[in-house]
Amino acid sequence: MLGQMMTAPLLISSLIDHAAKYHGQTEIVSVETAGGVTTTSWGEVARNARRLGSALTRMGLAPQARCATIAWNNRRHLEIYFGVSGAGFVCHTINPRLFPEQLIYIINHAQDQVLFLDATFLPIAVKLKEHLPELKHVVLMGPRDEAAAAQLPGLIFYDELLETGDPEFDWPSFDENTASSLCYTSGTTGHPKGVLYSHRSTLLHTFSANLSDTLGLTARDVVMPVVPMFHVNAWGVPYCAAMVGARLVMPGPGLDGDSLVNLIDTYKVTMALGVPTIWLGLLASARKSGSTLESLKRTVIGGSACPPSMIAQFRDRYGVETIHAWGMSEMSPLGSVNIPLAKHRDLPIEEQHRLRENQGRPPFGVELKIVDEDGNALPQDGKSQGELLVRGHWVIESYFRKQDEELLQDGWFATGDVATLDADGFMSIKDRSKDIIKSGGEWISSVELENIAVAHPKLANAAVIGVRHPKWDERPLLVAVVAEGESPTEDELLAFYEGKIASWQVPDKVVFIEALPLNATGKVLKRSLREQFIDLLMS
Amino acid sequence: MLGQMMTAPLLISSLIDHAAKYHGQTEIVSVETAGGVTTTSWGEVARNARRLGSALTRMGLAPQARCATIAWNNRRHLEIYFGVSGAGFVCHTINPRLFPEQLIYIINHAQDQVLFLDATFLPIAVKLKEHLPELKHVVLMGPRDEAAAAQLPGLIFYDELLETGDPEFDWPSFDENTASSLCYTSGTTGHPKGVLYSHRSTLLHTFSANLSDTLGLTARDVVMPVVPMFHVNAWGVPYCAAMVGARLVMPGPGLDGDSLVNLIDTYKVTMALGVPTIWLGLLASARKSGSTLESLKRTVIGGSACPPSMIAQFRDRYGVETIHAWGMSEMSPLGSVNIPLAKHRDLPIEEQHRLRENQGRPPFGVELKIVDEDGNALPQDGKSQGELLVRGHWVIESYFRKQDEELLQDGWFATGDVATLDADGFMSIKDRSKDIIKSGGEWISSVELENIAVAHPKLANAAVIGVRHPKWDERPLLVAVVAEGESPTEDELLAFYEGKIASWQVPDKVVFIEALPLNATGKVLKRSLREQFIDLLMS
Repeated sequence: MLGQMMTAPLLISSLIDHAAKYHGQTEIVSVETAGGVTTTSWGEVARNARRLGSALTRMGLAPQARCATIAWNNRRHLEIYFGVSGAGFVCHTINPRLFPEQLIYIINHAQDQVLFLDATFLPIAVKLKEHLPELKHVVLMGPRDEAAAAQLPGLIFYDELLETGDPEFDWPSFDENTASSLCYTSGTTGHPKGVLYSHRSTLLHTFSANLSDTLGLTARDVVMPVVPMFHVNAWGVPYCAAMVGARLVMPGPGLDGDSLVNLIDTYKVTMALGVPTIWLGLLASARKSGSTLESLKRTVIGGSACPPSMIAQFRDRYGVETIHAWGMSEMSPLGSVNIPLAKHRDLPIEEQHRLRENQGRPPFGVELKIVDEDGNALPQDGKSQGELLVRGHWVIESYFRKQDEELLQDGWFATGDVATLDADGFMSIKDRSKDIIKSGGEWISSVELENIAVAHPKLANAAVIGVRHPKWDERPLLVAVVAEGESPTEDELLAFYEGKIASWQVPDKVVFIEALPLNATGKVLKRSLREQFIDLLMS
Repeated sequence: MLGQMMTAPLLISSLIDHAAKYHGQTEIVSVETAGGVTTTSWGEVARNARRLGSALTRMGLAPQARCATIAWNNRRHLEIYFGVSGAGFVCHTINPRLFPEQLIYIINHAQDQVLFLDATFLPIAVKLKEHLPELKHVVLMGPRDEAAAAQLPGLIFYDELLETGDPEFDWPSFDENTASSLCYTSGTTGHPKGVLYSHRSTLLHTFSANLSDTLGLTARDVVMPVVPMFHVNAWGVPYCAAMVGARLVMPGPGLDGDSLVNLIDTYKVTMALGVPTIWLGLLASARKSGSTLESLKRTVIGGSACPPSMIAQFRDRYGVETIHAWGMSEMSPLGSVNIPLAKHRDLPIEEQHRLRENQGRPPFGVELKIVDEDGNALPQDGKSQGELLVRGHWVIESYFRKQDEELLQDGWFATGDVATLDADGFMSIKDRSKDIIKSGGEWISSVELENIAVAHPKLANAAVIGVRHPKWDERPLLVAVVAEGESPTEDELLAFYEGKIASWQVPDKVVFIEALPLNATGKVLKRSLREQFIDLLMS
């Protein structure tokens, strides 16, 4: 027997409708690709999303046709998110920092029909166009630009395309499990793989991300997603903000520390979200300029493990609460968030701080477990390390166009992370399973060694990798980037580990390099470091 | 094309599983019907819910068999909520204050198979049993009690029933639109009507109620639902608390001011929810005892319009934020919540306070509109009054066993309330459409006149009704309950309206009575007052 309540599908269009109806005047600040700042509103974003949905429908695209974007975080990108998905097409966000052959692979594999581009990325489209036989339309995100038009025959201009659309366009209704958006993960081996989100998975993720104990956005927040919109939907922030009518500050192309500090102070940003490397730049800039980041109340840090020293700096110097979060493209991305429990309040303050350092506990809707190499569940004792498996309403079932490849283990997705879970479900990522260092039969977490190294005042950044060793199979190597004006010695850096970890875990050696190789989302490319230094301890 | 994410049904069992797994030690404080206080935990509630689900399944109940409760807010009632729905049966909460013939009608109409009773209500069951031919089992919520057993042959004892159940019982999985729970609305005319909630509607309601800008429960809250669990699922609090692992204080049978103040102070309640009449008693008790309600941060007030003077008292005397909310059984119940917008912060403080007095704006997932007598939409200008219509994921489609009666108007449910909506979607209930006073072709809100009257220091309570008038058709009559030790005159009370409303809206007369007639949920029975005083101005 079924309930007798109204049943309507959970659709992304209902998010933008809600924002327009109840928060129509609420500001969206957008740093433009061409420079300057535009202030628009949820009402205007919604109106343009409808016009875009209408214009794409009039173009004759088939339902769920993929419409790609290569773009910064800005107002037009926001309109595209809602306009494309709302009209029943699939919004496929692409990371512009991928190699050309990866871009070609992704666009062709996704069968993208339309490509929306910020002006920055026009050269990419010009160069790749001949390799993209299925791509029908390239849309430059801006007004008409004759110089650009000359570079790419048939180029469409976004602002003109909108003019062809109906601002009163009625969003279509359809099955909530319909595909809404697509993100490719840039794995370190093989071709990138696509994660195809649905309207339902997106809406449920948005609800859970907006719980008070998750990200908890409100209509009084000014939220700056520094995490790119091409990176797992900016962690879902565009949807979360629409659901509650939060103000948004879209930082555009300038993600350097000075630009971010300036945006925070000018627009009174209360909450910002991004990866650790971004915050290193921001903290350096704030120290230099003397900004107190007065309006900022919360930072959400994810994408890679957040060094405890960064949490402490935000807390002690700026009074900013850091919410350490963990997720993956394959989980929309939210997997866990570090928010305290009631019982933590009675602990000594140092212990409370320490408890904020791990990746936290899953919000309602997703579950975590750890297993040994044979797939047996390991105890949640805060010590047992195992591969982390996840399942839930916004977790992948199979990769796009790979339905036939069995991805899950008994209904769980294997993350490739090694982690511990404690009795309260708080999770601590020890390493990527491929990065963990296996030394003489024992496991050493490269992440723990890095967290200690980056707290050294003479280092700007650091990575730790496992390299071959004649006796121990693998030993840790510290790859260090020196801070401006400093020149630490190897001994000095290794001595810094004393008393912080067991002596057999201390790296065997230090190498200094100019900068760490980063992938498009700011993560260190350890594979590339390993290739370079793999035999350093063998001679 | 569908997305490629995991799809699992949204089920109530997943809420209690989450609470048990991630908040297993978190306390549930329960005032027992027999006196005394028990402290249990989400882990224990979950274990008992599984045992109950298992025991009911072993009894051979059919899927979605209705299991009724007549009970206070306590731990066993909480276990029944999750155990019954989780196992695929329908939890039918009954208001014990209904008249016997209404109880008989409801239990028979719902086809209840099982009736769970607190000891307080055993006499009801003894008296009614012979009129309930379909009822198979009566379960007394407590341990074996021979005196009770002697009163009702075949009586089952809850604690013994649990012993027959398996604490490792696997919750069944089924369509998320399956019926989960049932509540009858006690209308003022005709038979009560049943609202049949689904697992999906309940889960989506829970998500939205837990948004930061709605009720926003957290794992650090101590939440006391004073609103009864037989009254629209205690506004969804049991589900909301499970979703985030909030601590609960279940007040049991004693809802007088002294008992509530004592619970708040003893268990450090941070948030309490209830109807205005309950808070009148609580505020009087706190004044008398000198309690500062120190732990209390938020009260949620709904069920009937909250007098502005009550919001001011909570705010100015106790530093408690009042969240004024509005809903109905037919909407699970959440329709709107008064939480400020960013732009309200810049207003003068008096204006900010005034803005907190109305019923607020809908959270994501529900929509409001107002229409004139022909069903045409009226403008959202804060002035136009019309009947309030609602729709959304947790709004009724048809009453239970009345699928054939067309309930909706173009997909909207008509609430029977007269309201205004402003440009931001903030709603102000003016009256029930049947209570609004139609005087000489103009509408007068009885609620506005009551809000002024209850702010008079010499009144304990007040109601305003429309009574017949030879010239104006209807005129307002103030029905006043005098505060202890006071004896205001009629002139004094009517003079109190001067300058607060237009003079033609001032009541024509005052009658003094001992106490207002209240229905089972504490709402004033205006119909009964009208019957008594209808011709008072005709002589």
